[in-house]
Amino acid sequence: MSASASLASGPEGPHALRPLLDTVLDALSEGARARGGPLPSGGPDAVATRVRDALGDVLPDQGDPNALHAVVRSLAENAADPADPYCAAHLHCPPLALATAADLAASALNPSLDSWDQAPGASELEALVTGALAREVYRGPGLHDPTNGAEPLQNGTGRGGEGEKTPAQPDALITTGGTESNHLALLLAREAHGTGVRLVHGANAHHSLPRAAWLLGLPEPVVVPAPAGTLDPAALDEALTHLPGPHGSLVVAATAGTTDAGLIDPLPQIAALCTAHGARLHVDAAYGGALLFSDRYRDRLTGLDAADTVTLDLHKLGWQPVAAGVLAVRDPRDLAVLHHRADYLNAEDDTEAGLPDLLGRSLRTSRRPDVLKIAVTLKALGRTGLGRLVEQVCDRAREFAALVDDHPGFELHDPPTISTVLFRPAPATDDAVAAVRRRLLTEGRAVLGRARINGRLWLKATLLNPHTHPDDLAALLKLVEGNTPR
Amino acid sequence: MSASASLASGPEGPHALRPLLDTVLDALSEGARARGGPLPSGGPDAVATRVRDALGDVLPDQGDPNALHAVVRSLAENAADPADPYCAAHLHCPPLALATAADLAASALNPSLDSWDQAPGASELEALVTGALAREVYRGPGLHDPTNGAEPLQNGTGRGGEGEKTPAQPDALITTGGTESNHLALLLAREAHGTGVRLVHGANAHHSLPRAAWLLGLPEPVVVPAPAGTLDPAALDEALTHLPGPHGSLVVAATAGTTDAGLIDPLPQIAALCTAHGARLHVDAAYGGALLFSDRYRDRLTGLDAADTVTLDLHKLGWQPVAAGVLAVRDPRDLAVLHHRADYLNAEDDTEAGLPDLLGRSLRTSRRPDVLKIAVTLKALGRTGLGRLVEQVCDRAREFAALVDDHPGFELHDPPTISTVLFRPAPATDDAVAAVRRRLLTEGRAVLGRARINGRLWLKATLLNPHTHPDDLAALLKLVEGNTPR
Repeated sequence: MSASASLASGPEGPHALRPLLDTVLDALSEGARARGGPLPSGGPDAVATRVRDALGDVLPDQGDPNALHAVVRSLAENAADPADPYCAAHLHCPPLALATAADLAASALNPSLDSWDQAPGASELEALVTGALAREVYRGPGLHDPTNGAEPLQNGTGRGGEGEKTPAQPDALITTGGTESNHLALLLAREAHGTGVRLVHGANAHHSLPRAAWLLGLPEPVVVPAPAGTLDPAALDEALTHLPGPHGSLVVAATAGTTDAGLIDPLPQIAALCTAHGARLHVDAAYGGALLFSDRYRDRLTGLDAADTVTLDLHKLGWQPVAAGVLAVRDPRDLAVLHHRADYLNAEDDTEAGLPDLLGRSLRTSRRPDVLKIAVTLKALGRTGLGRLVEQVCDRAREFAALVDDHPGFELHDPPTISTVLFRPAPATDDAVAAVRRRLLTEGRAVLGRARINGRLWLKATLLNPHTHPDDLAALLKLVEGNTPR
Repeated sequence: MSASASLASGPEGPHALRPLLDTVLDALSEGARARGGPLPSGGPDAVATRVRDALGDVLPDQGDPNALHAVVRSLAENAADPADPYCAAHLHCPPLALATAADLAASALNPSLDSWDQAPGASELEALVTGALAREVYRGPGLHDPTNGAEPLQNGTGRGGEGEKTPAQPDALITTGGTESNHLALLLAREAHGTGVRLVHGANAHHSLPRAAWLLGLPEPVVVPAPAGTLDPAALDEALTHLPGPHGSLVVAATAGTTDAGLIDPLPQIAALCTAHGARLHVDAAYGGALLFSDRYRDRLTGLDAADTVTLDLHKLGWQPVAAGVLAVRDPRDLAVLHHRADYLNAEDDTEAGLPDLLGRSLRTSRRPDVLKIAVTLKALGRTGLGRLVEQVCDRAREFAALVDDHPGFELHDPPTISTVLFRPAPATDDAVAAVRRRLLTEGRAVLGRARINGRLWLKATLLNPHTHPDDLAALLKLVEGNTPR
């Protein structure tokens, strides 16, 4: 059999992988050198032409022994490198080398988390890590209490059989990201309260929330104003007061870390309103959730533990390769509605005989152990190391905001809450703001985001790279200045 | 900053990754040696204890520099290795080393396919590969025609702006697997024909189909009998005749490669019935779809190209690490309902200015480029190399079936259609069949599946390892024989 058919696992797996990994690392280096900047130059058509030329025939009759090098090199040459300090548009983090290396083991062994006999160790690892993350969310906003949460969950997989965990222990699921977490959160609400359950969200909420309501066949969501970028509690109170329906027929979604500005909704007030009106509370903390790891920032999430469900996303502020989403659930009984029987995966007599039943841990069936890289990261960095990374990017954002504020040619929107800075060239029109962003993109010089706030367009820098240096920030601002149309 | 915070990309990325990858390969080898068989011994409790002990405190205050080695080693020690010939239960393939190595580049560069400026090259690569896969599905069952399908799709990302592709070109989306593909297929049906659209599926269909109907808020599906393991056309005709509702209000799901037995529904007859009754047709070819790559087996999928939507899953018969799902769509206009606007990702003026709009390519937002490993595999092996792997596992299954059939102590269910063999010790009760499977699992000696067919329980061997030797098959049968309770 040809070398191209070598397998990644089995006794020969590591031996087969080693030279191929060298090829990949070389191709990554070569591609990055050929790119020579944060992203490829020339814009979409030029990129498309280069990728097409490098790939050639997608499915040739005969294999091409150079394919791995050629395709990876082209990917790198035409990538927006999230580790470049000028790549600061989106919640698109540069992954840790550690997490990336761990992810390789998931690909090589290919455990699939739909049945124990495909993932004996990975399923236990997932139970341990999701239990720890759930406790992190639900232990409240105070400083780390070493007596609370250090022990592994009893039977965290939600397994049947003996040793059922106590109902009070929170739990969490691993997802493909904030979008799937939000979808699951609404599904749990629908199954708890019926298909008439209505989503109430701020105008600042992530687009995946109304999209999830559409997917699930729920009524049109109610949008509550967020004039200052955060959900307005008075407007929420009014909406909850006037919306009809029985207890539990409303689910409020708040945001901890908005996509546009990195703002955090007033969680304690929102939680109190939900309690008063009998509404369910979901908090989308896809961006802000990782503040939990920082002693300096953790109390910004006060009130988070009042939510029925919480979205986290460690491929944002968490330095994981995509995907590393989490849905934390306060009452694990909510997860029972995901229980699902497929005789070939979790036959009743097998479950009774003690084989763990994993199908109720996801809407997917085959499922990659994204938990592995998360486990390695939590353990290798510890709370202190993760907290430090969080604080570094928040510090960089404050420094960048100060540079903007001090510069007569720029307007700062507001001091950053997390690590997002909105700014604009002071005299520019909206069209000019949009144009400078596209110009920097097309020329391959910088990746900045954009946000429309109260009718005005702003440039957005989302700082997620802990290695960015203050000098990089000054140079980035200068680059924007030099490229703004006059 | 500490070494544990090194990034995977940027100029120092490959340099930071190299020693960590060595650590991973060493930990994989060590873990496999410690395991010493196809899966860990001792059953769920022993595995859980070992994993807990190796991991210790999931989120310690201070980081542990040995975490990568310890966690990966534990994962390998407690894995069911899909490359072991005795690991033959599920559609859980051993991934190619090539695909695994390519997947590393996806983790390192972390392109996210929700906007062009996070994935300039990866989005074009995805467009090229999905176009080629869609043409593979929709070029009909004949032999490869080099004049049809060799050119890249024009503008396959479904971009706005100039160069819109002609409506007749099929398209495909990359998904997390067959489950998401089936979910998307039903969503497209719902959006085309309304929330009253009703799923009609065989009793042999994958559990994710009725689950998707539940998720989407569709009416209870209609189950058509499949007494011989494949959907019965006469029963389907009767169901379609008597179900009420207008043209298009029914969506029939057929299967090409059932989970239990690897059987293929009579696609041409089903397609003709759908045409006659005005029903939409989805084919779940998660398992069987890769027969398209083999000249010897391709014609078993005759009729596939009549489907409106087709699920493929290259992490089954395709040797990819999870996830590598595909949904092929005959009429790309069906995908328009996924179009979605989020100002920060695809503002209207950016799209008008030529920036590709990617949000309509998935229900996810952040999205890993699973297409990379697929692209490398298609290109490195070519149609011939992939077809040969398909034929090898089908040959192994035929050989194993012959061994079973020739053995007086075993009963063969049927000659295999793809690579699944159902068999049972001739005199055993169902309880004994279930017990031998669990015993081999618990002792760490073999991973076999199970299937209940017409009320009797069978052992299932799903042969997906092209490197399995005929001698391994004889030894596996002997192992079952020696462990069957008498």
